[in-house]
Amino acid sequence: MDIKKIIESADRFENEAVEIRRDFHKYAESAWTEFRTTAKIIEFLQERGIQVLYGLDVVDPEYCFSYPDKDTIEYHKKRAIEQGANPEIVEKMQGYTGAMAIIDSGKPGKTMAMRFDIDCNDLDEAKDEKHKPYRENFASVNAGCMHACGHDGHATIGMLTAAILNEYKDQLTGKVKIVFQLGEEGVKGALSMVKKGILDDADFVYAAHISAPGTEGTPSICAAQKGSFATTKIDITINGKSSHAGGDPEKGNHAILAACTAIMSMYSQIQNGKGNTRLNVGTIQGGTGRNVIPEKCFFRVETRGSNTEAEQDVYDAVLRCVDAACRAYGCTWSHEIKGRAVTAEFDEPLIHAIMKAAELVPEFKNISESINLHGGADDFAYMVRRVQEVGGMGCYMALQTEEAAGHHNSYFDFDEKCLIPGVKQFLAVTGYIMEHGVEE
Amino acid sequence: MDIKKIIESADRFENEAVEIRRDFHKYAESAWTEFRTTAKIIEFLQERGIQVLYGLDVVDPEYCFSYPDKDTIEYHKKRAIEQGANPEIVEKMQGYTGAMAIIDSGKPGKTMAMRFDIDCNDLDEAKDEKHKPYRENFASVNAGCMHACGHDGHATIGMLTAAILNEYKDQLTGKVKIVFQLGEEGVKGALSMVKKGILDDADFVYAAHISAPGTEGTPSICAAQKGSFATTKIDITINGKSSHAGGDPEKGNHAILAACTAIMSMYSQIQNGKGNTRLNVGTIQGGTGRNVIPEKCFFRVETRGSNTEAEQDVYDAVLRCVDAACRAYGCTWSHEIKGRAVTAEFDEPLIHAIMKAAELVPEFKNISESINLHGGADDFAYMVRRVQEVGGMGCYMALQTEEAAGHHNSYFDFDEKCLIPGVKQFLAVTGYIMEHGVEE
Amino acid sequence: MDIKKIIESADRFENEAVEIRRDFHKYAESAWTEFRTTAKIIEFLQERGIQVLYGLDVVDPEYCFSYPDKDTIEYHKKRAIEQGANPEIVEKMQGYTGAMAIIDSGKPGKTMAMRFDIDCNDLDEAKDEKHKPYRENFASVNAGCMHACGHDGHATIGMLTAAILNEYKDQLTGKVKIVFQLGEEGVKGALSMVKKGILDDADFVYAAHISAPGTEGTPSICAAQKGSFATTKIDITINGKSSHAGGDPEKGNHAILAACTAIMSMYSQIQNGKGNTRLNVGTIQGGTGRNVIPEKCFFRVETRGSNTEAEQDVYDAVLRCVDAACRAYGCTWSHEIKGRAVTAEFDEPLIHAIMKAAELVPEFKNISESINLHGGADDFAYMVRRVQEVGGMGCYMALQTEEAAGHHNSYFDFDEKCLIPGVKQFLAVTGYIMEHGVEE
Amino acid sequence: MDIKKIIESADRFENEAVEIRRDFHKYAESAWTEFRTTAKIIEFLQERGIQVLYGLDVVDPEYCFSYPDKDTIEYHKKRAIEQGANPEIVEKMQGYTGAMAIIDSGKPGKTMAMRFDIDCNDLDEAKDEKHKPYRENFASVNAGCMHACGHDGHATIGMLTAAILNEYKDQLTGKVKIVFQLGEEGVKGALSMVKKGILDDADFVYAAHISAPGTEGTPSICAAQKGSFATTKIDITINGKSSHAGGDPEKGNHAILAACTAIMSMYSQIQNGKGNTRLNVGTIQGGTGRNVIPEKCFFRVETRGSNTEAEQDVYDAVLRCVDAACRAYGCTWSHEIKGRAVTAEFDEPLIHAIMKAAELVPEFKNISESINLHGGADDFAYMVRRVQEVGGMGCYMALQTEEAAGHHNSYFDFDEKCLIPGVKQFLAVTGYIMEHGVEE
Repeated sequence: MDIKKIIESADRFENEAVEIRRDFHKYAESAWTEFRTTAKIIEFLQERGIQVLYGLDVVDPEYCFSYPDKDTIEYHKKRAIEQGANPEIVEKMQGYTGAMAIIDSGKPGKTMAMRFDIDCNDLDEAKDEKHKPYRENFASVNAGCMHACGHDGHATIGMLTAAILNEYKDQLTGKVKIVFQLGEEGVKGALSMVKKGILDDADFVYAAHISAPGTEGTPSICAAQKGSFATTKIDITINGKSSHAGGDPEKGNHAILAACTAIMSMYSQIQNGKGNTRLNVGTIQGGTGRNVIPEKCFFRVETRGSNTEAEQDVYDAVLRCVDAACRAYGCTWSHEIKGRAVTAEFDEPLIHAIMKAAELVPEFKNISESINLHGGADDFAYMVRRVQEVGGMGCYMALQTEEAAGHHNSYFDFDEKCLIPGVKQFLAVTGYIMEHGVEE
Repeated sequence: MDIKKIIESADRFENEAVEIRRDFHKYAESAWTEFRTTAKIIEFLQERGIQVLYGLDVVDPEYCFSYPDKDTIEYHKKRAIEQGANPEIVEKMQGYTGAMAIIDSGKPGKTMAMRFDIDCNDLDEAKDEKHKPYRENFASVNAGCMHACGHDGHATIGMLTAAILNEYKDQLTGKVKIVFQLGEEGVKGALSMVKKGILDDADFVYAAHISAPGTEGTPSICAAQKGSFATTKIDITINGKSSHAGGDPEKGNHAILAACTAIMSMYSQIQNGKGNTRLNVGTIQGGTGRNVIPEKCFFRVETRGSNTEAEQDVYDAVLRCVDAACRAYGCTWSHEIKGRAVTAEFDEPLIHAIMKAAELVPEFKNISESINLHGGADDFAYMVRRVQEVGGMGCYMALQTEEAAGHHNSYFDFDEKCLIPGVKQFLAVTGYIMEHGVEE
Repeated sequence: MDIKKIIESADRFENEAVEIRRDFHKYAESAWTEFRTTAKIIEFLQERGIQVLYGLDVVDPEYCFSYPDKDTIEYHKKRAIEQGANPEIVEKMQGYTGAMAIIDSGKPGKTMAMRFDIDCNDLDEAKDEKHKPYRENFASVNAGCMHACGHDGHATIGMLTAAILNEYKDQLTGKVKIVFQLGEEGVKGALSMVKKGILDDADFVYAAHISAPGTEGTPSICAAQKGSFATTKIDITINGKSSHAGGDPEKGNHAILAACTAIMSMYSQIQNGKGNTRLNVGTIQGGTGRNVIPEKCFFRVETRGSNTEAEQDVYDAVLRCVDAACRAYGCTWSHEIKGRAVTAEFDEPLIHAIMKAAELVPEFKNISESINLHGGADDFAYMVRRVQEVGGMGCYMALQTEEAAGHHNSYFDFDEKCLIPGVKQFLAVTGYIMEHGVEE
Repeated sequence: MDIKKIIESADRFENEAVEIRRDFHKYAESAWTEFRTTAKIIEFLQERGIQVLYGLDVVDPEYCFSYPDKDTIEYHKKRAIEQGANPEIVEKMQGYTGAMAIIDSGKPGKTMAMRFDIDCNDLDEAKDEKHKPYRENFASVNAGCMHACGHDGHATIGMLTAAILNEYKDQLTGKVKIVFQLGEEGVKGALSMVKKGILDDADFVYAAHISAPGTEGTPSICAAQKGSFATTKIDITINGKSSHAGGDPEKGNHAILAACTAIMSMYSQIQNGKGNTRLNVGTIQGGTGRNVIPEKCFFRVETRGSNTEAEQDVYDAVLRCVDAACRAYGCTWSHEIKGRAVTAEFDEPLIHAIMKAAELVPEFKNISESINLHGGADDFAYMVRRVQEVGGMGCYMALQTEEAAGHHNSYFDFDEKCLIPGVKQFLAVTGYIMEHGVEE
């Protein structure tokens, strides 16, 4: 395999990379509604003769956290088509976004899986001349939808990586799987793809996230982006009973008081010797009228933990406190998990191989081993854990570049000069391991 | 004065009473938006040559609890005109509903004031053949607006009482003031009329509420409807500061936690040796996103007390607890009083005069002295207190009749056979006291 | 029957009344430890040939709220004997105080029951020259024990009433039962006597409490002292699990946090449309060390209600909230009822008979029908309810006299001039009803 | 300097080390009352002609957390004398324990400071044949006092280190300060010694704690024992106002409810992006009677943080919540700091020198660089910080040995075979740095 040549061949996509990225940026779509994005990816791959699985072939509908209602799905399918998606492909998706390219060399070898997330944030993009996407006319046209976390870049990198690997298919061994994951924001989508089994034969899985610069210039690569937290996103509904607050207060079951009691007691149970933890009650809504004992209260909770065990303790405390408070006030309750991520440990041998591979990418100003990015969460960890369960390895890289503002900020933008180096790094890692394997 | 004749003269309005009431019922208007209702009353009175004050002549704008924003006012003025209100009168109201008829005999004597409330409830009326207003086609056409507390009947009784007293003006002594009060529901309007000073010369003030039957058949009259609670309706807004719940929780000021703490502590401070009390937090809304420390939380509170002093203690506790909780969480807060009522003691001599007068109304199956209707509130108490302050007396009667469902219920309806006896009772009380005074 | 003579015969006990009362005052004994007091009463009655039941003949040990441990009982038996109790009688009590005299006329007739409570308060008596019992050397010699609620007077009145009725036994009809109740303070004792069945044959039961003056001079009598609250005294123990607060906080179950949560939520559930209510958490104690998750928390609660149903709701809420909070924190709990009283309605015919009878007592400056003494509680209500259940009637009088300070105050004292009129009133009521019955 | 010889010379103290340790163990004394222990140390040093400072020469009385009342001090002085302390020395201490030996070589050079803590835990020692100190008759004779954290060993090591260094004074350069710190348990004493300025001239400060074994056999040495938490121990008193819970609940200010509110809200404010945190309310006590609004509530709190800044945030939240809750309930409050420790970073050059020096101690089975012992706290960090402030370096070693049970457990005991190696390590570090300095 002529790795250097394969890597160099990425250079000719420099303009196309920017075009693809800006197209995705302009038509940003959020979790479970990435119909246009997915259709564009599928079309791109199929035009190149690449095998693509999508729809119910890559998603298990039982594990779709926060999957929207039918009307929302239909609305977004229609919008995707109006914004240029191929209607036939959209229809074949059966309501489920996400896709996986498979490039099978036909030769024996390892199965190399890569993951690229494709969804945007729920955010209005800045309309401001200071903001380059606005100035250069590729800001999002979809209200409440903005790529403020670089997934437009990730999708682009994945597509070009697939195109190039496919060109050099005859030089490859084993099999390559390129996963385009729906709904990473809110940690909604990864588990549904994992549960479908698409990684059950993978030997390696890796991904990269566009990330703020380190101290040594950009673009740079960091092999292992650590510190992700486990998290669960939980919607809680408390059902009480209404009665007249003046006349018969004792006949009601006060859903707001049950919620307040639950909230106060869950916050008092987050200390954990196993790891650092977080709890937030981010929204609350309850009651219908001032003079009525409120019969309903709804609130959104998230728990986090520096490891899955600590997070599980906090999660358990949340449900235990809701249940208890409901008993205190004679209420009932239900909950829905709207997103969930675990933590994962990355494999040292893979980390070292990634660092070696990065040396093949001339643009990188620096190659580092690991960085700690506390407090965030990424459901890619489900993929890492699954591949580890079946005997493989996983790792999550940081592709460090200049950024115009923090992630999830309406002024977020990244330096597109990282795109081709990003593609090269995926080519490098894939090729390096095919040739050299990893040292255990 | 030939009281009997005056009273009997009401009989000829039997059909008109029903017509007026059904017209008001169909075009129900809620607090501060009773433009059509007020205009119809003014027109009716002016057509009969009765002096009417309205708009800023009867309302002090500084004391208008829950007065809506400009757009809302304009919207309802427009609707009123579309639904048949005289546009000129609507314009002259200057944005303020409510009116007062004055019938001045020109002779020396007492000033007799009566109050009739005219607003509806915030409620969708039942659309059901079982429900007579729907079956007979006078159910409310205004969404979210329904006369479910009989104020359509009250307004009707007031208009006819005015018309008849005006006819017999030469037999009267002193002066009669017939107050059509806006916004009794939510106890929003009475204080603004009292503060305008329209009752500062009154010797007596009385009112009647359509009420459920007693044990002795209907219609009946009860001289003193006691047990009203003092109440305050308070909107609370807590302002915190947002931050990322995972990364920098300590940089935020959690408005929902401040609200929960405030709520739990205010509920623990309602016990009162001075009287029975009530507190309700009826609605809550806060936060923007699950993973953001919420920067705002809004909740609606009401306090009640079997006397004004006890209610004041609970009210003070509410604000004290909100202030304290905000300090605990580094938040700030503001509040708005959306409605308020005090309690009033009724005057024994007036109660006895009312009972005597009731003997002149042949329809009454029963005349009782007092009834206890706990837990409710009526801002008529402000009028009673004001008249007592200037040396007069006040009382609140219950006009007992058949009712199809409880007050504030979407199936509420009352037996229209109570309307004429209601008119007669106001005529009787007014005439009786003009002739005999009250025995102190 | 020569009622007047019987009543007049009380006058000769004026000095003895003061002596007995002062003796009891000096050797004050609190709930379940009234061994000396009970023994003195029994001796007094037996010396006069009156039949007396006591010990397990008048108390059902299953219903003894707050019954002390063995050592406490033995300690107080010993003290009683040292302070002059007849050791033989003390032994025969079998650890249970309280007694009942029975005077059976042998003739047909009603069974008239009276109740006199005999226990003192848990209080140190004022040692101050201003305080007459101290000045005249009959202040309590028992630390923490003081008759600050007049039960020394009640016991005296009961003994003399028994003595006189026994003298005139041949003039009586039916049967008289004079109950000397242990442990009224803290509402501990009455239920145990009721459950023993000693009132199951009573037609009437009445009692009187020494009370503050009305407006018309003293001594006076008020037939019905209303407004007592139902109450339950509950001890709660929460059991958690300790762990190191720094190292393994999640391994502990925090009993203090469970208590705080329970307390805050129970206070938010006391509003009741059925009646006025009260809740108090009067004491709390928990934890062993600052750096240990506390494994135990104990607190004392009392609930009150203006009727038994409302009080029951609050009581239920207390236990429900404790149970719920313990679930939230993984704790367990237990509770013990330390005292309990219900409310009772008094019978109109008996009230009228009592007022009639009072006319026979020349000392009374005033005879009134009823007085409202809110917020307190008296387990005499169990006796009234029981007699009503078996078809009889009950009432609780107020014997109004001058008092040096409020009840339960260390300076409390009452004017001993009320004692003989008190005896006369019991004689009068008993005699009047024997002769005239009550008018239903 | 002949380091090897100096180190070897420690071997001859093997028996004396055990004797001294067992003597201290038997007469265990807790914080601020180590009169006998201090006097024995002083005597030992003075007998060898070593200069010793003590009493107000080594403690600033303004910074004495949890300093006891006069009676307690006097009681323990008396006990110390009865148990063999030199009365003259005890008297000269002026009520303050702790001491510092100074060995001045008279030659230029660094000032080397070592710290040895000498207090015991507040604990009853196990009386059980399984427990060696009991079996061999050196268990504590002082109730509630037990050396369950090895400070008896620390004191012993410090004394022998001083004796030996003094013997070889002529081979030393610079100055040696050997600090015997009172009250490390509960982090009470270090700050008072630091504030006195005794370390203001130190170039190095080091200490060692007897610690559980690592994986490589015992005794072993670990150069840097990291992971100590900052902590504050706070006593909170809330003062409310009592009133009758049934009659006038609104007149009271409920100290227990204020405490519950404060506690619940402080627990909800411990999340911190700067570091891991802990909060514990370990004990609570409030109220006097069940039916009285409680006027006082006292509780013990401790806060911890993996760095001083995070701990400070939690500390601030505690006081802010107490203040706020007191405002909500109309209460006042006060607090007292009973102990406090910060965190410290240890200096890499010193760590390396310590490791090098350890190679000179033949007994050590293993020499490691650092260990993480989370959650604990040690006020030695104040000394490290102070020395760093004046330009020096600090480090805290772990002397790993076999232990019979966990620290602070009533069965705790350690293998006395670690004592001489402990002495040798202090000799080695002191000598090594005097000769070689540290490599920056």
